[in-house]
Amino acid sequence: MEIGRRDLILSAAALALTPRALAAQRPNRPLGYAIVGLGYYGLRIIIPEFANCKHSRLAAVVSGDPAKARRVAAEHGLSDRAIYSYANFDSIRDNPDVDIVYVCLPNSMHAEYTIRAAKAGKHVLCEKPMAVSAAECEAMIAACKAADRKLMIGYRCHFEPTNLEAMRLARAGEAGKIRYVRSEHGFVQGDPSAWRLKRALAGGGSLMDMGVYSLQAARYMTGEEPVAVTARESTDRRDPRFTEVEDMIEWTLEFPSGALAGCQSMYSANQNRILLMGDKGRIELEPATRYDGNRMWLGKDGREREVTPPAGPAKTQFAGQLDHIVQCVRTGQEPVVSGEEGLRDMRIVEAIYRSAREGRTIRLDGRA
Amino acid sequence: MEIGRRDLILSAAALALTPRALAAQRPNRPLGYAIVGLGYYGLRIIIPEFANCKHSRLAAVVSGDPAKARRVAAEHGLSDRAIYSYANFDSIRDNPDVDIVYVCLPNSMHAEYTIRAAKAGKHVLCEKPMAVSAAECEAMIAACKAADRKLMIGYRCHFEPTNLEAMRLARAGEAGKIRYVRSEHGFVQGDPSAWRLKRALAGGGSLMDMGVYSLQAARYMTGEEPVAVTARESTDRRDPRFTEVEDMIEWTLEFPSGALAGCQSMYSANQNRILLMGDKGRIELEPATRYDGNRMWLGKDGREREVTPPAGPAKTQFAGQLDHIVQCVRTGQEPVVSGEEGLRDMRIVEAIYRSAREGRTIRLDGRA
Repeated sequence: MEIGRRDLILSAAALALTPRALAAQRPNRPLGYAIVGLGYYGLRIIIPEFANCKHSRLAAVVSGDPAKARRVAAEHGLSDRAIYSYANFDSIRDNPDVDIVYVCLPNSMHAEYTIRAAKAGKHVLCEKPMAVSAAECEAMIAACKAADRKLMIGYRCHFEPTNLEAMRLARAGEAGKIRYVRSEHGFVQGDPSAWRLKRALAGGGSLMDMGVYSLQAARYMTGEEPVAVTARESTDRRDPRFTEVEDMIEWTLEFPSGALAGCQSMYSANQNRILLMGDKGRIELEPATRYDGNRMWLGKDGREREVTPPAGPAKTQFAGQLDHIVQCVRTGQEPVVSGEEGLRDMRIVEAIYRSAREGRTIRLDGRA
Repeated sequence: MEIGRRDLILSAAALALTPRALAAQRPNRPLGYAIVGLGYYGLRIIIPEFANCKHSRLAAVVSGDPAKARRVAAEHGLSDRAIYSYANFDSIRDNPDVDIVYVCLPNSMHAEYTIRAAKAGKHVLCEKPMAVSAAECEAMIAACKAADRKLMIGYRCHFEPTNLEAMRLARAGEAGKIRYVRSEHGFVQGDPSAWRLKRALAGGGSLMDMGVYSLQAARYMTGEEPVAVTARESTDRRDPRFTEVEDMIEWTLEFPSGALAGCQSMYSANQNRILLMGDKGRIELEPATRYDGNRMWLGKDGREREVTPPAGPAKTQFAGQLDHIVQCVRTGQEPVVSGEEGLRDMRIVEAIYRSAREGRTIRLDGRA
């Protein structure tokens, strides 16, 4: 192992410093993440992405499965002190190696672990959907504010090159005056035992999962906040997968400019598409929001010209997301996908469910 | 000019027969059409299509513009007796050369000319939308029934190879259990003086034009009748094109099977697409319902395999449509796109407008 002269000087100086002071001394030290929840997303998607990060590293794991936690810790060179259970999670406050807690738990646990992390003095990156109610989102924002910690939602598309380029083109007027956005997300949910099909864990069905992508796309493609929503749901309640949550839901958002967004999510067919239509042309993405392989076309009437977006801000959308909150911690800026952004979505999600339930349009702007 | 022996015998025999009796004697004689309305569709799209027909021929024109009517008649070898004005249209009853009247007028005139044609003893092919209200459709059906004449609506997609193959594949279970149909139709309506933008002539905006394609597709792709509709409209009323009728309208249909259809029409952006999603795959058409160049793809998640449909029942969808009612006249069968089919659509159209106006779901099955 080669150690440079500068490293030796810094290391020597560090001996006299607390870890937090050390971090201040070495502003470009990668910040340490605790991954809460070692399910598929946390374990298979997020943890491997630290290898693609410049400013983030794995520092701890939190799991209800001690054997799995030990195995993952060992694989990633973490000591036993970097392993937490849900019972002793609050003691993470005493681990200066952890700067940020990434909540990768089922939806209904997001609020609790975000609030506990903030109280433990950690910044929080929380998976989408932010929580299962707007009231929970408000409590999460308040907790992070009280602790003076950053709160960011795992809206990875804001770090994905195709979506970023689509947003830029939409803002630049590529399609002219925006009239309509269509966003469809779904997949065939094959496992009837998945936690996403349990109301107590997921808070809802496809809307709380893929629907959040459709909703987000409607907002980031138009750049507007909706003023009304009209929704319809359709679920085969005899299907063993859908005894607790909805399969398919369809909703129309109305924006102040007059643009409409037709959105949809489902658990009974595959789709992944965003289309923006303006009076001068179209921007179409399909697949739109996958982990990779997203594609985009421009055209007057259809897919006339495929566009290769410029490289994104990081090696992958996941690395970009992980490193973004680090930069926010360092600079004091708000994450581009803050807790307020998650709260906005959750208020709309509640209105979508209410509209579907009551069979009427729900205003989002306080008008009758 | 070469005249065969058989023709000579038939012609000689015909001398002793009335034209109607002649038709009975020569069951494969092409039937004669009167085209009512020499606007773009009648003049530029339909009249040239008689060249592609086996069983149909142009026999008369009806126009409010005598000079145009004379020019068109001359171009197609019709005598002055084959020219009618709107004033003397009813005298077409005395023209045995006309078997079928094709109503290519603005929407609000469909009912009047269909009923007058039936009273004149003619079969009727009426452009879509069938009329501007369900009440008008009922009167049209009653008039044709009373006169024992066929009534067919100009739903050309039922004669278009790509759409026919899509219907066949959907019925054959290619996509599995149908969960969702998406149908989007629109174009940039550039001419503020177009009759389609005048409420008195069009009866409504984009829904009465392109929206009918979206609605038809939702019905023929699912093969079901909707039980409820939820709609939202968005129109910039400051836009000089949209002082009288809607620009954009979005609606969700619910079907008895639980399938949903998300449909849309607009006059401020270009789109032409049908997508069917089932639990086993997708059938996608884009462009879906153009005069030509329609394309179709199958796939699990997207456009994985392009399908070239088998040749349709006629040279073109227009010729197929023109010849179909002739076959119905000859065999006594009902047209596949009968007046009842047009009435079904118009009842849904009325419910779409009502849902958008009242901001609530409208049941179509009589349930509360």
